[in-house]
Amino acid sequence: MKQIEWLNGTLRLLDQRKLPLSMEYIDCDDYMLVYDAIKTLAVRGAPLIGVSAAMGICVAARQAVKGGFDVQKYTADAEKKLRSARPTAVNLMWALDRMLPFIAAYSGDNDAYIASLDKEAFAIWEEDIELCRKMGEFGLDVVPQNANIITHCNTGSLATAGDGTALAVIRHAHRAGRNIHVYADETRPLLQGARLTAWELDQDGIPFTLMCDNMSSHLMKTHKIDLIVTGADRIAANGDSANKIGTYGLAVSAAYHKVPFYIAAPYSTIDMSIKSGDEIIIEQRNPEEVRSLGGVRTAPEGCDAFNPAFDVTPNSLIKGIITDRGIIRPPFDINLRKLLG
Amino acid sequence: MKQIEWLNGTLRLLDQRKLPLSMEYIDCDDYMLVYDAIKTLAVRGAPLIGVSAAMGICVAARQAVKGGFDVQKYTADAEKKLRSARPTAVNLMWALDRMLPFIAAYSGDNDAYIASLDKEAFAIWEEDIELCRKMGEFGLDVVPQNANIITHCNTGSLATAGDGTALAVIRHAHRAGRNIHVYADETRPLLQGARLTAWELDQDGIPFTLMCDNMSSHLMKTHKIDLIVTGADRIAANGDSANKIGTYGLAVSAAYHKVPFYIAAPYSTIDMSIKSGDEIIIEQRNPEEVRSLGGVRTAPEGCDAFNPAFDVTPNSLIKGIITDRGIIRPPFDINLRKLLG
Repeated sequence: MKQIEWLNGTLRLLDQRKLPLSMEYIDCDDYMLVYDAIKTLAVRGAPLIGVSAAMGICVAARQAVKGGFDVQKYTADAEKKLRSARPTAVNLMWALDRMLPFIAAYSGDNDAYIASLDKEAFAIWEEDIELCRKMGEFGLDVVPQNANIITHCNTGSLATAGDGTALAVIRHAHRAGRNIHVYADETRPLLQGARLTAWELDQDGIPFTLMCDNMSSHLMKTHKIDLIVTGADRIAANGDSANKIGTYGLAVSAAYHKVPFYIAAPYSTIDMSIKSGDEIIIEQRNPEEVRSLGGVRTAPEGCDAFNPAFDVTPNSLIKGIITDRGIIRPPFDINLRKLLG
Repeated sequence: MKQIEWLNGTLRLLDQRKLPLSMEYIDCDDYMLVYDAIKTLAVRGAPLIGVSAAMGICVAARQAVKGGFDVQKYTADAEKKLRSARPTAVNLMWALDRMLPFIAAYSGDNDAYIASLDKEAFAIWEEDIELCRKMGEFGLDVVPQNANIITHCNTGSLATAGDGTALAVIRHAHRAGRNIHVYADETRPLLQGARLTAWELDQDGIPFTLMCDNMSSHLMKTHKIDLIVTGADRIAANGDSANKIGTYGLAVSAAYHKVPFYIAAPYSTIDMSIKSGDEIIIEQRNPEEVRSLGGVRTAPEGCDAFNPAFDVTPNSLIKGIITDRGIIRPPFDINLRKLLG
């Protein structure tokens, strides 16, 4: 399985909406296909969105040259469009920020321009694989032998260009012989846990049990749970972390049951420009996602539905943030500043 | 809509699995059809299960007479079978316990036997309607003007023979002009909130918003929520309450957000024979319910899945129990004993 692949100027993305029932790919020879893939969650996961968007700029530059358009303006417009695909994931902005100087430096030499964009986008891609590896290594410190671990949403190879964030920690612990068992939240409404995480764990032979999101408190009360680890889409300077809806409730329950709650995210997820989670814009998605699944309606037609894509877990509920540069512990405001200083 | 109806010896049950897409009925002229309806959740909700099971004895007695079987033995066997349909809902046992003396008193006069069973079963049925009305009246005390209320699962006309338990409180407050807004958890895996509660609220014109179970903590953090009220399937002598899976997590989060958490249940749900929630058997259901949603498979085929039907909310998280005899407040062990004494 390749979640993302570069085919000589075309970006091939695995259509994650079709998993686990079928494996279909979207061949993006137009940056608007990359935009649509991000927007509709065909490709998702904060780090993978970042890599895809950066590669989307490389696609756009080729389109501009081929179409005889104003190459710099065309790629600059593509950058703005791609940036607007999803509002919460900071990696999207981070990856595009890295592409901006190369767009600005356009000299009229199209071959050199494309080569410079490719070089930076591939650097982001390669770096993401390396960041995942390091999170996995550092994360090993918080995984005891025979650990039962709860995770939420999908944070694996389908969310990054590498092993994942939280799932990299889990993969590493499994490979290191920790004899772990994973409890995967299905993660309504789009079921990334059931469709993607369960599928990845299954492929890797890591023992796991799927559950509905509303079962985790009962599980913590009745079973020995040693650790909860999730990803993040944006981490504020004080450690408050936005992640998939449901993460906050899991953290509240973890505190009540005294289960250590960890976030795993690369440094690129940390947004020092915002002081706290209060400043994080929460994307509201189409209510139809809550009213139905796979074309099957489950509620009265057109009824009002709440559908925030994310929630914010306050730093007080987080035991540590597993980054590619080590595990950050409270006080997060001071220690995150040190990390990125 | 009639959720339960008696048609001259046949028990007609609304098949709730088909809602809200279609209204289909199961005509039970065999008590095994009643058993299957309870077992498969075609009919559900603790009080309605009790009424249905009691009426199932009336169906069985008619079968025995018609088939020329040993009438008392046949109905006694039916009673045992019906009792085994679901292990957690105490109302099932409670209703069947009320039928037992009439089965034991069989004198050989079939007409008198059937008349005596009918009389008791209809008394249970009528009483349930009255219990609902009273819970609604007493519950009004805890619903402020303009209240935003979270509820879980279905506790309405589809769960009882009357207005419901928690939903009776909501209906009463709406009729009394409290200008309420309801947030209904969809209630995975079987979506009783999305399919049934949303449908009932819609029919009654009560303003509501549907949400996934994992959104309630974010809702409590970001919106003014005044009250959470749910039903119960069994309440221990100390107030610990078993209810639909997800209730416990909601109560944990309510405590964290300082939102008053109430249970609404008739006296018949209180089981003084068990000291605490630790003694409540939690029904484990088919994992396939978790691996699919609305008939669509959402996870790797045959993967392991956790599927407890209920969880237990400890008394420490419950602000009060709204019963048909008034609102019971802590200390529950003393006040429940007084209530039933």
